[in-house]
Amino acid sequence: MALTIGVDIGGTKIAAGVVDEDGTILDTSQVATPPTPEGVVEAIAGAIKAVGGGTSVEAVGIGAAGYVDDKRATVLFAPNIYWRREALKDKIEQRVGLSVVVENDANAAAWGEYRFGAGAGHDDVVCVTLGTGIGGGIIIGGRLHRGRFGVAGEFGHVRVVPDGLLCGCGSQGCWEQYASGRALVRYARQRATATPEAATLLLGMGDGTPEGIEGRHISAAARQGDPVARDSFRELARWAGAGLADLASLFDPSAFIVGGGVSDEGDLVLDPIRKSFRRWLVGGRYRPHAQVLAAQLGGRAGLVGAADLARQG
Amino acid sequence: MALTIGVDIGGTKIAAGVVDEDGTILDTSQVATPPTPEGVVEAIAGAIKAVGGGTSVEAVGIGAAGYVDDKRATVLFAPNIYWRREALKDKIEQRVGLSVVVENDANAAAWGEYRFGAGAGHDDVVCVTLGTGIGGGIIIGGRLHRGRFGVAGEFGHVRVVPDGLLCGCGSQGCWEQYASGRALVRYARQRATATPEAATLLLGMGDGTPEGIEGRHISAAARQGDPVARDSFRELARWAGAGLADLASLFDPSAFIVGGGVSDEGDLVLDPIRKSFRRWLVGGRYRPHAQVLAAQLGGRAGLVGAADLARQG
Amino acid sequence: MALTIGVDIGGTKIAAGVVDEDGTILDTSQVATPPTPEGVVEAIAGAIKAVGGGTSVEAVGIGAAGYVDDKRATVLFAPNIYWRREALKDKIEQRVGLSVVVENDANAAAWGEYRFGAGAGHDDVVCVTLGTGIGGGIIIGGRLHRGRFGVAGEFGHVRVVPDGLLCGCGSQGCWEQYASGRALVRYARQRATATPEAATLLLGMGDGTPEGIEGRHISAAARQGDPVARDSFRELARWAGAGLADLASLFDPSAFIVGGGVSDEGDLVLDPIRKSFRRWLVGGRYRPHAQVLAAQLGGRAGLVGAADLARQG
Amino acid sequence: MALTIGVDIGGTKIAAGVVDEDGTILDTSQVATPPTPEGVVEAIAGAIKAVGGGTSVEAVGIGAAGYVDDKRATVLFAPNIYWRREALKDKIEQRVGLSVVVENDANAAAWGEYRFGAGAGHDDVVCVTLGTGIGGGIIIGGRLHRGRFGVAGEFGHVRVVPDGLLCGCGSQGCWEQYASGRALVRYARQRATATPEAATLLLGMGDGTPEGIEGRHISAAARQGDPVARDSFRELARWAGAGLADLASLFDPSAFIVGGGVSDEGDLVLDPIRKSFRRWLVGGRYRPHAQVLAAQLGGRAGLVGAADLARQG
Repeated sequence: MALTIGVDIGGTKIAAGVVDEDGTILDTSQVATPPTPEGVVEAIAGAIKAVGGGTSVEAVGIGAAGYVDDKRATVLFAPNIYWRREALKDKIEQRVGLSVVVENDANAAAWGEYRFGAGAGHDDVVCVTLGTGIGGGIIIGGRLHRGRFGVAGEFGHVRVVPDGLLCGCGSQGCWEQYASGRALVRYARQRATATPEAATLLLGMGDGTPEGIEGRHISAAARQGDPVARDSFRELARWAGAGLADLASLFDPSAFIVGGGVSDEGDLVLDPIRKSFRRWLVGGRYRPHAQVLAAQLGGRAGLVGAADLARQG
Repeated sequence: MALTIGVDIGGTKIAAGVVDEDGTILDTSQVATPPTPEGVVEAIAGAIKAVGGGTSVEAVGIGAAGYVDDKRATVLFAPNIYWRREALKDKIEQRVGLSVVVENDANAAAWGEYRFGAGAGHDDVVCVTLGTGIGGGIIIGGRLHRGRFGVAGEFGHVRVVPDGLLCGCGSQGCWEQYASGRALVRYARQRATATPEAATLLLGMGDGTPEGIEGRHISAAARQGDPVARDSFRELARWAGAGLADLASLFDPSAFIVGGGVSDEGDLVLDPIRKSFRRWLVGGRYRPHAQVLAAQLGGRAGLVGAADLARQG
Repeated sequence: MALTIGVDIGGTKIAAGVVDEDGTILDTSQVATPPTPEGVVEAIAGAIKAVGGGTSVEAVGIGAAGYVDDKRATVLFAPNIYWRREALKDKIEQRVGLSVVVENDANAAAWGEYRFGAGAGHDDVVCVTLGTGIGGGIIIGGRLHRGRFGVAGEFGHVRVVPDGLLCGCGSQGCWEQYASGRALVRYARQRATATPEAATLLLGMGDGTPEGIEGRHISAAARQGDPVARDSFRELARWAGAGLADLASLFDPSAFIVGGGVSDEGDLVLDPIRKSFRRWLVGGRYRPHAQVLAAQLGGRAGLVGAADLARQG
Repeated sequence: MALTIGVDIGGTKIAAGVVDEDGTILDTSQVATPPTPEGVVEAIAGAIKAVGGGTSVEAVGIGAAGYVDDKRATVLFAPNIYWRREALKDKIEQRVGLSVVVENDANAAAWGEYRFGAGAGHDDVVCVTLGTGIGGGIIIGGRLHRGRFGVAGEFGHVRVVPDGLLCGCGSQGCWEQYASGRALVRYARQRATATPEAATLLLGMGDGTPEGIEGRHISAAARQGDPVARDSFRELARWAGAGLADLASLFDPSAFIVGGGVSDEGDLVLDPIRKSFRRWLVGGRYRPHAQVLAAQLGGRAGLVGAADLARQG
């Protein structure tokens, strides 16, 4: 049986797992993410060796945040680790003696969902990860669309508000400033600051200040019907749904798969997103509508997807 | 030698042409566009028969404005002709006795440019037509990306300004309201209305009123260095370039091909677009930049592209 | 007892009324608005003569839509009647033999509310009329603020969305495109078009089409809890409240008086406006908040206000 | 001869000056701004005593950043000093034995320009200070418009971009994020980052990095015709002029006085602002246009204005 190893590089930990052809994780290892760029390379190699997997492991797939070149070998730029033109494929192959494929982490997660999660029955899907920021992956005709230079699918940095909010990328008005988990928290804090009398439930869940409000408080409060929390989700959904409508005009997939922390709330957030999507879908009366599905693999999507991409070669 | 016929359905005339494998048009015919939906069907058939081409013609490709289904047989919705779920493929095949492929006209034009125009040497290109509105076509890995339902590449209706200008599509803030030829005329008229003393050259080219200013006047005035015309082009370029930057984040092509009437001005308009594109390209320091090329086939792109798509089957 | 006559020039009818010092209307007359500019002048004179009032009438105040000069004599520009630099004061004085004051109609209505309506107890109020468009009037220290050239208080044409909706004034993104009664209807129609299944109640009140939805349907449906109608009011309130917050930063009045057809719904619309106002009021924790009050005089405000302004001389 | 003392509280120094009836500064003193709120109070008193002026000094006027109450006695909130409901009038009167008037610093500066600077011949002026942020002051009928609660004229925090840039005030899209000196620097840095090859002159004036670009570099480069600097000024002017057009719709003054560091460049920046003002002025063909004037008093305006307001009592 052909096994591969998938690696997911997170901000706090690096996880490796042996994955079979059905996307099942057979064995995992995990280490803390080191603070130095070179330390991360060693930690990745260590995590891979730790899961081992024996002679039946054929290849390794690594999902990394940032721009990965079109040869799937070099990380051109990573936002959180100081990698600039980092030859990750070569370095890991030398250390572990296995063939390595490097992939953008959002692409890997999209591939995981497409193959083993919510993507069942679809050949053209767009995956959108609403986490702290917004990531994305595109499957067209059953193939991952990486772009000519490997950097397609950077949905989070499409400009949705001219002269809008500053983004860490240096641009302004990026979608992830309006439809990510971080945006959700901003909406709730702004409302709690302006109208604290309406936000007593939400404020009471944290330390009593607007700054103490966190994402999990907003979810909990929304489930209890709290109006400020509901309004915050509704505002996020307005932007998320409108963005999906734009992606439909561009890519025309049969389904969107919405993942990331925000989507953990399920229909609490997906239903308003679907409503906003229908409102803004251009030509909605004359075209089939893409489905808007919740992701199914949660945090495993990236690891499983990376492993499967390594198998595909 | 394998020949095919391409058909281009315009607002005022319908053109058909026999095209060879190199994209050369060997023979053409042309008729006025009839006012009724059924009349258009007959006129298409008539134009095809008029060019004939003899036994060597293998197939017909028709480029039509609007949504074409994923089977390339039915026009789901056309903006200018009252076609709703029009079975165009069947109707034309019955009339001309040749195999027919129906394609969105912007897709056909994009394919034409990709195969025989500015696309030489590229496998991943995004074509943007800045005409009265904005159309588009996407080539990924040397294949036309039509979308699951056939309606991908509707660039013109991506929302670039929330709560922005009303669009004929029923939505608001669509890109084509800001970066098309019609937008260019609006910019010039607004400026000539507000500051007529600065627009004497431009006003003098028409009937002296802001409403008399047309696209060709703006081009002519800009070439003479007129500041109002230059400012109008610059405003268009701001929006056009920012939109291309967003498309780069999404599709990551190796080149953009910019066609349509606006691009007829060449570097007069393309240079400001390139400048704006560089300004707004996210991560521009860490990624290869797509080229921004002028289309080469002009008005022939749609006919030639439709013919070639018919050849591809 | 000192009486004056107030005149209100509407799109369909011209009303005149004898008004006493307490703002009570003692007698009224009304004529249809003629189609020609000169006809309107005659009709105004006729309406004034029809109410008469005897020797005790001291002066006439006329409220007219458009720009009125700083001498309160000439209509510089009227949007609905073809008046350009129309010497209305002189023409009416010649015809009726009474001293005449011309005033912008929104200013007259604001003055009426300030003197005899919701303005009781306030010396600094900003009146906002949310009707088909948006008009406004400013009272500072108990005096009407007309501006140096007589055209202050054109709230409806402040730009709230750069590159936003076209306005009849020739500009883009004007507040009245987002917070007026016409905007409310647009919101409802857009929603009913995109998601007709959610708008059955609202659609059923008109002719079944989105275009058949009118303002009164939205009000009626909102009172029945219809979600599309409620969402439409909420969208209007978002813009209205944010605009009031801006006006507070500029004028710092003790109260806003909200009139016009939209305000007829009372707290159904005023409460969401107040909520939005609080959300967007800059420095809200460190400053006293202006009250947001409903107008009290309804359609009489303009006539009563014009009459009182004539009395003030 | 009646003399008064004006005080200007800056971020780095506190200046006091004896001013005569013609706005001439006869004597000045200056101290560094202490770091504690109470230290600032003592420093103000010390600076006043240092200029002395003898028995002929009648009163003191203090210009302070922040919200000042309608009694001109208490600073409700200061952005840079930790004053919350600070009874500044009482504290200073106790220390210096003179009658004290506290005024918002932008109001004081506006009054100074109105009385002794660019305001000559005007009774209705709006002063806009384009400095690090944007401040403002309003003169109506020869009187300072303070607002019911003392906080009128907060131009800088009017929302000009919905969902726009975060502002220190807690809101989004405030005018001062787009038309202030700080905005100008951001424009230049963004351009220098995106297109360094076009910004060599500008980059060379600082330390070679975009972050090293400062306001004075942009001014110097613009005077040499540098395109990036010119474009940055043009972008600022687009927002500044559009904002003035909105203020004209609201206040209808006979003149705008533009002060602050940005205006030090004179017509280099004022001409583009005037052009943008004309473009966006609603109804510009049918109304007299307010003049757009450069401030004349520079940094003295606040001190001189505060002194004169104290004289007015």
